[in-house]
Amino acid sequence: MRNTIEVTHAARPVTYTVDASNERGETVPTAIAGEHALTLYLDKRELVTLMTLGAAPESLAIGYLRNQRIVRSADELAAVQVDWDVDSVAITSRTLQQTGITIWEQRDRQQELERKMGRRTVTTGCGQGTVFGDLMDEIDTIQLPASAMLSEEVLYSVMDRVRRHESIYKVAGAVHGCALCANSGEQRGEILNFVEDVGRHNAVDAIAGWMWQQGVDGADKIFYTTGRLTSEMVIKCAQMGIPFLLSRSGLTHMGHQIATRIGITMIGRCQGKHYLLFSGAERFVRLQTSTIA
Amino acid sequence: MRNTIEVTHAARPVTYTVDASNERGETVPTAIAGEHALTLYLDKRELVTLMTLGAAPESLAIGYLRNQRIVRSADELAAVQVDWDVDSVAITSRTLQQTGITIWEQRDRQQELERKMGRRTVTTGCGQGTVFGDLMDEIDTIQLPASAMLSEEVLYSVMDRVRRHESIYKVAGAVHGCALCANSGEQRGEILNFVEDVGRHNAVDAIAGWMWQQGVDGADKIFYTTGRLTSEMVIKCAQMGIPFLLSRSGLTHMGHQIATRIGITMIGRCQGKHYLLFSGAERFVRLQTSTIA
Repeated sequence: MRNTIEVTHAARPVTYTVDASNERGETVPTAIAGEHALTLYLDKRELVTLMTLGAAPESLAIGYLRNQRIVRSADELAAVQVDWDVDSVAITSRTLQQTGITIWEQRDRQQELERKMGRRTVTTGCGQGTVFGDLMDEIDTIQLPASAMLSEEVLYSVMDRVRRHESIYKVAGAVHGCALCANSGEQRGEILNFVEDVGRHNAVDAIAGWMWQQGVDGADKIFYTTGRLTSEMVIKCAQMGIPFLLSRSGLTHMGHQIATRIGITMIGRCQGKHYLLFSGAERFVRLQTSTIA
Repeated sequence: MRNTIEVTHAARPVTYTVDASNERGETVPTAIAGEHALTLYLDKRELVTLMTLGAAPESLAIGYLRNQRIVRSADELAAVQVDWDVDSVAITSRTLQQTGITIWEQRDRQQELERKMGRRTVTTGCGQGTVFGDLMDEIDTIQLPASAMLSEEVLYSVMDRVRRHESIYKVAGAVHGCALCANSGEQRGEILNFVEDVGRHNAVDAIAGWMWQQGVDGADKIFYTTGRLTSEMVIKCAQMGIPFLLSRSGLTHMGHQIATRIGITMIGRCQGKHYLLFSGAERFVRLQTSTIA
């Protein structure tokens, strides 16, 4: 039986309205996306300050710890408490809660963490996302489920649902969205979780955090993002154990190389009924075989 | 007289072609953007690994040092040498070149840098761009030229030139572009430098680095980006001393707040003949006053 993480539910208002003036000199009240600094503390140690929309701060914090490999299992976490009065989130380990000793002291991880922090990898993002150095080292240890298949029908269902989903993007732009979708059971093709953020890696991290909170496995899931499929995006998808990665946007050469190496089925340029399948064709089932040479 | 920085010219091929298969089962050779790891060393100390398109690695390295406030002046730098055989760039300070003592030793900056690295701010980016903590502290010290004005005519000229500019984006997508444009003299409205990168903050940093290399001042310039106007984008523009910030995309609430506070003229949603002026209207001159109420 999984332990439950005690979490706040402290989402911030996600859009604000400001007056702009357009090319005709008219005043146009315009919705814009929120952006807030959120400083993460794990057992009282300050880790990082993220700039976020603030729609899912608890999941973001958990997912950040997960994707940065600072914590290895959701069971290590006891509580995640967001306090916007001080723009911070306090994460308490089960170790600290149960023994009064911080996760840092107990595990003697400090040395390892500082080694990692000394070898920071600033990843593509739209900027320079920090990853603690050795994400790449893990690539070859990842095993995706061999039997997972994605049908074109489910692909179209996901694309349509994402298109119709209510979003901050439609209102205010300036955000990226990620969706976790089912690829099995009655919910096949449906959106299980949808997160938007001003940073696309934040959106991915929040999905990863939510999966840990809910004890959700990636093997029978599909991951959709509006963002570009760069190396880090592909690595994070693989780390979540999700064999299918879809994007409305394009991809980079390194994203392609890593997806091919791991065996992720990566589909880019998903728009309407159009898509481009870039890797992992063996997992993909078309509705019908084309007769075009 | 400015000192010249000795630089390599080691741009990497910017696109690759891979086979994808589309919804009709056809094989579609598709151009995709390059993405390369580039590790920065300053006087032999490893600083960070950036994931980059590799189109302007020397400018990127210099701009990263500038925008992260690791180096305070271009005059501190003697040489920037990119070596793709080891995916790294070696930056040599003038101090080391002239005295044999590293910049770190001479300035006793180590303590300050580690303090900064300990308080990392992971900024919006599309991800989690690293900034060494105290960018925000500097906001109030920034003075933009009070007399700088942007006319609507020049705005349209910049937008048109950017639209017609050859770009990786048109070929392969998955990149962001930034342009530095003139706002005075015969070149008014023209593009002086145009950089694309898989990370939008890399593109900004490369422009900032180029400005230092060339001794270019920001006061009579205009900055254009395809990316969202988040807090960090606005701060970097201000740090470059550029009073005008244009974007094809939207903005965030914090980006808006900071632009208003600094007095940057920020114009978003620039597309065709449309735009939205969000701040700094006092620097902007319309072609004609609208008669619409």
